[in-house]
Amino acid sequence: MIRITVSYPNAEGKRFDQAYYQSTHRQLLMGRLAAHGLQRVEMDKALADGAGGQPAVVACAHMIFTDLAGFQAGMAAHGREIMGDVAQYTDIAPDVLISEMAP
Amino acid sequence: MIRITVSYPNAEGKRFDQAYYQSTHRQLLMGRLAAHGLQRVEMDKALADGAGGQPAVVACAHMIFTDLAGFQAGMAAHGREIMGDVAQYTDIAPDVLISEMAP
Repeated sequence: MIRITVSYPNAEGKRFDQAYYQSTHRQLLMGRLAAHGLQRVEMDKALADGAGGQPAVVACAHMIFTDLAGFQAGMAAHGREIMGDVAQYTDIAPDVLISEMAP
Repeated sequence: MIRITVSYPNAEGKRFDQAYYQSTHRQLLMGRLAAHGLQRVEMDKALADGAGGQPAVVACAHMIFTDLAGFQAGMAAHGREIMGDVAQYTDIAPDVLISEMAP
């Protein structure tokens, strides 16, 4: 399985609407990408770093796909619509990490 | 639920033994921390960043706990033994992120 981690760095004066992500963006992802192997979406709200200090990110989304080809095909088909919804919940430019999950 | 994300930054000449993590360190974590609410451990091998370039990390471990108090109690009880095993699989100093997972 493949994890797509989308991390939103912590920065002064930026906004991130967790409620919108949960109520609307997450449903958009599942609705468009489940047919391409998206198994689940997890959204984390960052609390602290390991020393109890300010975390480096505000939030992270995790999209778990069956395989990389499915993610790529899904984004080719629906990426424009999905990316177009991002401005509804944040003005932070996210970092993306693509990983293979150990079985 | 709480996610503890342990990220191992990518750096020249460092080692990370994924097989040891999966075969031994993961079992140590589950063995000691399940009683403190550790539900699962996921280990990811980083493949690429969002643009297909070199990823910022080599690997990420995700520990999913029922609550933060359980994680803290588990590490108070077993942290010394768990941290003592880390040198067996890596010489990378990891970054830790503590997050609350949306329901």
